[in-house]
Amino acid sequence: MSEAAQTLDGWYCLHDFRSIDWSAWKLLTSDERQAAIHEFLGLLEKWTVTENAEQGSHALYSIVGQKADLMLMILRPTMEELNEIELEFNKTKLAEFSIPTYSYVSVVELSNYLAGESNEDPYQNPHIRSRLYPKLPQANYSCFYPMDKRRQGNDNWYSLSMAERRDLMKSHGLIGRSYAGKVKQIITGSVGFDDYEWGVTLFSDDVLQFKKLVYEMRFDEVSARYGEFGSFFVGNRLSDSKLPSFFHVK
Amino acid sequence: MSEAAQTLDGWYCLHDFRSIDWSAWKLLTSDERQAAIHEFLGLLEKWTVTENAEQGSHALYSIVGQKADLMLMILRPTMEELNEIELEFNKTKLAEFSIPTYSYVSVVELSNYLAGESNEDPYQNPHIRSRLYPKLPQANYSCFYPMDKRRQGNDNWYSLSMAERRDLMKSHGLIGRSYAGKVKQIITGSVGFDDYEWGVTLFSDDVLQFKKLVYEMRFDEVSARYGEFGSFFVGNRLSDSKLPSFFHVK
Amino acid sequence: MSEAAQTLDGWYCLHDFRSIDWSAWKLLTSDERQAAIHEFLGLLEKWTVTENAEQGSHALYSIVGQKADLMLMILRPTMEELNEIELEFNKTKLAEFSIPTYSYVSVVELSNYLAGESNEDPYQNPHIRSRLYPKLPQANYSCFYPMDKRRQGNDNWYSLSMAERRDLMKSHGLIGRSYAGKVKQIITGSVGFDDYEWGVTLFSDDVLQFKKLVYEMRFDEVSARYGEFGSFFVGNRLSDSKLPSFFHVK
Amino acid sequence: MSEAAQTLDGWYCLHDFRSIDWSAWKLLTSDERQAAIHEFLGLLEKWTVTENAEQGSHALYSIVGQKADLMLMILRPTMEELNEIELEFNKTKLAEFSIPTYSYVSVVELSNYLAGESNEDPYQNPHIRSRLYPKLPQANYSCFYPMDKRRQGNDNWYSLSMAERRDLMKSHGLIGRSYAGKVKQIITGSVGFDDYEWGVTLFSDDVLQFKKLVYEMRFDEVSARYGEFGSFFVGNRLSDSKLPSFFHVK
Amino acid sequence: MSEAAQTLDGWYCLHDFRSIDWSAWKLLTSDERQAAIHEFLGLLEKWTVTENAEQGSHALYSIVGQKADLMLMILRPTMEELNEIELEFNKTKLAEFSIPTYSYVSVVELSNYLAGESNEDPYQNPHIRSRLYPKLPQANYSCFYPMDKRRQGNDNWYSLSMAERRDLMKSHGLIGRSYAGKVKQIITGSVGFDDYEWGVTLFSDDVLQFKKLVYEMRFDEVSARYGEFGSFFVGNRLSDSKLPSFFHVK
Repeated sequence: MSEAAQTLDGWYCLHDFRSIDWSAWKLLTSDERQAAIHEFLGLLEKWTVTENAEQGSHALYSIVGQKADLMLMILRPTMEELNEIELEFNKTKLAEFSIPTYSYVSVVELSNYLAGESNEDPYQNPHIRSRLYPKLPQANYSCFYPMDKRRQGNDNWYSLSMAERRDLMKSHGLIGRSYAGKVKQIITGSVGFDDYEWGVTLFSDDVLQFKKLVYEMRFDEVSARYGEFGSFFVGNRLSDSKLPSFFHVK
Repeated sequence: MSEAAQTLDGWYCLHDFRSIDWSAWKLLTSDERQAAIHEFLGLLEKWTVTENAEQGSHALYSIVGQKADLMLMILRPTMEELNEIELEFNKTKLAEFSIPTYSYVSVVELSNYLAGESNEDPYQNPHIRSRLYPKLPQANYSCFYPMDKRRQGNDNWYSLSMAERRDLMKSHGLIGRSYAGKVKQIITGSVGFDDYEWGVTLFSDDVLQFKKLVYEMRFDEVSARYGEFGSFFVGNRLSDSKLPSFFHVK
Repeated sequence: MSEAAQTLDGWYCLHDFRSIDWSAWKLLTSDERQAAIHEFLGLLEKWTVTENAEQGSHALYSIVGQKADLMLMILRPTMEELNEIELEFNKTKLAEFSIPTYSYVSVVELSNYLAGESNEDPYQNPHIRSRLYPKLPQANYSCFYPMDKRRQGNDNWYSLSMAERRDLMKSHGLIGRSYAGKVKQIITGSVGFDDYEWGVTLFSDDVLQFKKLVYEMRFDEVSARYGEFGSFFVGNRLSDSKLPSFFHVK
Repeated sequence: MSEAAQTLDGWYCLHDFRSIDWSAWKLLTSDERQAAIHEFLGLLEKWTVTENAEQGSHALYSIVGQKADLMLMILRPTMEELNEIELEFNKTKLAEFSIPTYSYVSVVELSNYLAGESNEDPYQNPHIRSRLYPKLPQANYSCFYPMDKRRQGNDNWYSLSMAERRDLMKSHGLIGRSYAGKVKQIITGSVGFDDYEWGVTLFSDDVLQFKKLVYEMRFDEVSARYGEFGSFFVGNRLSDSKLPSFFHVK
Repeated sequence: MSEAAQTLDGWYCLHDFRSIDWSAWKLLTSDERQAAIHEFLGLLEKWTVTENAEQGSHALYSIVGQKADLMLMILRPTMEELNEIELEFNKTKLAEFSIPTYSYVSVVELSNYLAGESNEDPYQNPHIRSRLYPKLPQANYSCFYPMDKRRQGNDNWYSLSMAERRDLMKSHGLIGRSYAGKVKQIITGSVGFDDYEWGVTLFSDDVLQFKKLVYEMRFDEVSARYGEFGSFFVGNRLSDSKLPSFFHVK
């Protein structure tokens, strides 16, 4: 048996993708639509209070293509809170006009592949804390995809030694680091929580950087030999102020 | 042909996952919703009587993410009883507002890989009986996933000798045992009953232990080379007392 | 090219799986439901007349889990009759409340792997006839699954010589035979008719025997190296006399 | 790079599979149903005029099992005509009660693997013309499936030399030819048009011959090592005169 | 790690596939349908203004078979514009009668495999600009499919050296070039944007050329060993002037 990687785990994370049923939405009166948007803005406001209190974070993006219209990403200290938020949203008026298309359950994760040795409690380290309990950036674009490490014939990540994996992850990490300032990357672990082993959420003000980063990584052995990828979702930031026009219909 | 593992088989098991159609649920009057919840609580009460008589057990969890809203796990001495419970639930008012999203049919199973030799009838052994006919714990969290042993090229579990499989399972079992007190694991066999070969249901008061356990196991040869996993479902316990607020809508 | 196995082919076979739309069913008046059940019992009666005239056979099971509520298995001398029965059922009142979930088209098949040499016409042999044109047993439980023989890299069934395949099938058949009296097995061929190459339908009065049989076979080289399995369906016999209570709603 | 096979290409082909929504169909008045059938018979008549003018051909089969109720196969000189026919059918009354379940877009194809050398223009050869622009037979049964040639590890059809492929196809073709008079086979190419590389449509007055032919071929190296198969559809001929009773409901 | 290919990236691209709900469409009055078509023609006109200003391009095709009725392909300088167009279309009357069936998000891409060395800024090169910001041709036919480069066992594109990949792509490109004047090919990259790595959109006035081109390429090592293909969509051009008759119902 290979030595398992150790992880540091932060806030729990729910990615919730929805399409809007525009035909039904248009059947509402303008007042009903206003009330539904108002109710949803109320939720967002409440979540912002939580975010300001550093008890969680959230982000809302408008997904391009038919996979979804909206992506809601929520971070919270407990799995119960994710469930409560999901339940509260499902009971809103707006949710009646949304169709669930995909979701992902995970927890913010840092692995020890790249960590130095230390006697300190990493959970007390402010730099590490800011990565385990992050405030999601208000970037123009976001990209989400789930992924596995491959276990197939001679390409079996989990049969590699810890040293081999650490070396591979180091060179992989260098690519990520070369995008510092251009792409912010949040890794969430989902083994035991959802169908892939990790979720990757990228944020950038230049959407092309997502393609450049993921493509460059694909030539690196970690992705080339060991990466298995799920669906990719890309979208534009949907700020609270853009919501009314997003939902406006004649 | 390799020698087949022998199993001890206990109660039959149905995992039943449902989403709630909240839009339709809200169209009911408050009285109608109360009546539907009341009827469902009556079923739960009846099942608790069965559980107290040690004629079965059940658990109800609220699943996080869009895969389901509810997971109902039912144990009973016969396949007929599972069918009757399913049928009875399907005829309730509440079921009209539920959408089936996944189910799993299996039977509580202990394998002889880890068993010592004995002349006793294991079905009379109280320790074994408590594992074959378990009372499901009232843990805060539950995790369910189905799995296969791989039969692919050089990674073919079913072509290994009994001795090889026993050795592999022993080291695999050690991981499980290191989580004793933190995670309770119920293995149900489903060969001939459902699409995977086993179901794994985990219970814990610390949801992060699911991730740690499953991830650590993934580096063990049994999972690394021979594990094939289906969907993962994770949820929070939904006690009878929380049901009314779960289903409450304005 | 390897020598192809020869087959004897008997009655054509349709497995038809349906879920019941209980919400819609409850909207009927009690009289309407009675009429629908009565009409369906009339079909079953007609099929029983056919069965008694040894012109076909049928079985009805209540499937456990969400894959289906009902499995109807029909044997007939021609593909047209299967189509007519399907069409006739689809036009009944009951069918309006059923949702097709899976079906399988095949023909009862005996292969020559296990046959001795003979100058006789096997279609005149009464023992063989009883297997090609079987009366389905009224067993408590049934299990259905479709399967393929693998054609993958070094595990390619269709590249084996006839002698190799015959040897493998012999040892495989021994497992089946050791369950004689406990499990009755009907093999139907579906190459050219449906998506897998065979359907396997098992009948038993002890549902656990399905698991034991299929699991034991999985360690045999025919399944371990060469078996590819589709979905498994397991259910309890739904006799005509149980139908009214199955469909009864308050 | 291996030398690509050359093809002769004839009429474009659309296979269109539909299920009937019997519940909705029954809600029509008898007159409305008559009108819908009449309108559809009008389409069929028009297509028969085209067929008689040797400007196309068509066939209608009733599929067994839940994959579809009807298979409509249409041959025409241009892709536009297929699109127009599809559009015209979609706008009929009958189409309102049909649910699309599968379709396949391809073109009648002859490959040069089996062709002799010749200086003639093959498109002027009457024998070849009758195969490129065929009148579909009015056989009792039809079977359709799409297929690929495998490109997997050592089993990569497209890496074989032209000579190897020609040899393999020759022996494969011999099987097909041994069914002459029993099964008529129409190969349509779909590279660039649909998800598989070919469609295979078989016609016979003895449905069992489909199984015998496809099963025998599976032991031939072309299928055993290089065949990848999609879904199989089998059905009974639905002549214009049987249409009214097919659609008749009480 | 292999050296990553460099790309030039042009306009963002959305392929949007829709089926028409003809039953619902027929329920409209003729005036309502006229208004819906008029509104859609207004959108197309606006997009044509953008195209004439060289700020984007678009194309509309009628897809053959059940995968879709319409394919809308849109090119724009930013991801926001794609999202806005999608949103604007989703809010139209016509969209109420359309069912999303597939979509693809990508960006026009040129790779450096075939580029010569140069000190110029390629984004200033008029020839390159015309390929990065193309006016979509008004060809009779279009074909779309997404694809990956394979990463499987010994067939791992991303483990090849830059020199190997360049050589392979050169010979692959020669095939494409031999279809110059017959088929126009637009490659869009989608790593990080959608589920495959590239989208391929072909245009031609002779639909058979799609089959010839894709089939010939399949024998080339780049496709034979390294190509993984998604669904293929083929269709006929739907010019603005044909729209009214396309949507006309009695």
